[in-house]
Amino acid sequence: MNKRGMLIILSGPSGSGKGTIVRRLLKARDDTVLSISATTRSPRCGEQEGIHYYFKTHSEFKELIKQGELLEFAEYNGNYYGTPEEPVRKHLIEGKNVILEIEVQGAERVMNYRSDLVSIFITIPTMVELERRLHERGSESEETICRRMEIARRELSRAFRYDYVVLNDEVPLAVERINTIINAESMRYSRMENYIMEVINNA
Amino acid sequence: MNKRGMLIILSGPSGSGKGTIVRRLLKARDDTVLSISATTRSPRCGEQEGIHYYFKTHSEFKELIKQGELLEFAEYNGNYYGTPEEPVRKHLIEGKNVILEIEVQGAERVMNYRSDLVSIFITIPTMVELERRLHERGSESEETICRRMEIARRELSRAFRYDYVVLNDEVPLAVERINTIINAESMRYSRMENYIMEVINNA
Repeated sequence: MNKRGMLIILSGPSGSGKGTIVRRLLKARDDTVLSISATTRSPRCGEQEGIHYYFKTHSEFKELIKQGELLEFAEYNGNYYGTPEEPVRKHLIEGKNVILEIEVQGAERVMNYRSDLVSIFITIPTMVELERRLHERGSESEETICRRMEIARRELSRAFRYDYVVLNDEVPLAVERINTIINAESMRYSRMENYIMEVINNA
Repeated sequence: MNKRGMLIILSGPSGSGKGTIVRRLLKARDDTVLSISATTRSPRCGEQEGIHYYFKTHSEFKELIKQGELLEFAEYNGNYYGTPEEPVRKHLIEGKNVILEIEVQGAERVMNYRSDLVSIFITIPTMVELERRLHERGSESEETICRRMEIARRELSRAFRYDYVVLNDEVPLAVERINTIINAESMRYSRMENYIMEVINNA
């Protein structure tokens, strides 16, 4: 029974912990891979082509856009970031689930034109807890933290676009919740149809 | 966070083992109860009112139909069987999930007019296995077994009406799969909306 993989969008406000959750999830599931972004920004120390990013020149990136090869893209600080569709397609056909760990706006751009996906919104337990987490990083000014919290509030109000909402109160629990969702989704009728057909057609 | 319960339809061909699965599932989850049917047939030895069935006279049953108090009903061998809506409604409001363990035709009647439910179709692993299980009962003639298998095949072809398909190859696995589905469904956006609203509106 060779099943097509699922495309899974994982998003949530900055500070929701989606990066940590994804890393743990990937360790726990060998049927699931992470989609790798393309970017025009220069590699940072230790970053490897095809592992952390696909590094592209501006003209290469514009060609990807022109050819419709990106699931979504955006510009930050003069650089492009985007999700190439071809590797995603390949993994899905091979039966691997592909996770798009993506910020809220990018997630919506993907959801706007693809319906064959499972979308998960990671939420923080409370705004107080988000503030604590942002302070813990220690690297940001009070003003930046205030701004980030305002953005988080706005992003939380977009959760209705998602299939599921996962609370990240503790990382292992959040990972287990996403595991549960992926396992349940693999039992959707559409993903079990071939199995049912086999049972019916074999004696 | 007092959530409304889910209405869960559990169906599948005769021999799929849904009865056994439901009993095990109810032992494992104290947030979930079984819907009790109403019937006009006489209580059998040991059967108790409100536990095994709600026993009704023919005229009482007809009154339930007339008042629209049944989620579905059917007639077999001159007796009526049906699912009273009122206890279901009460449990859901109290936050309990309610399982309707029901044959395939009855399940479709409920699905035809309610959309706020999670529907699960239990499938046998193979027709050969179904035949083995039916023989194991020892109580049925070869002809009856053939007929039951034909009905099972027809019922399997209705699986597309359901949200999920659960394979019953081994009962503990099937119970765990249904558990997974219920847990995932409780993280649907619609069931997490109040939580998100609280996070947004509290400081």
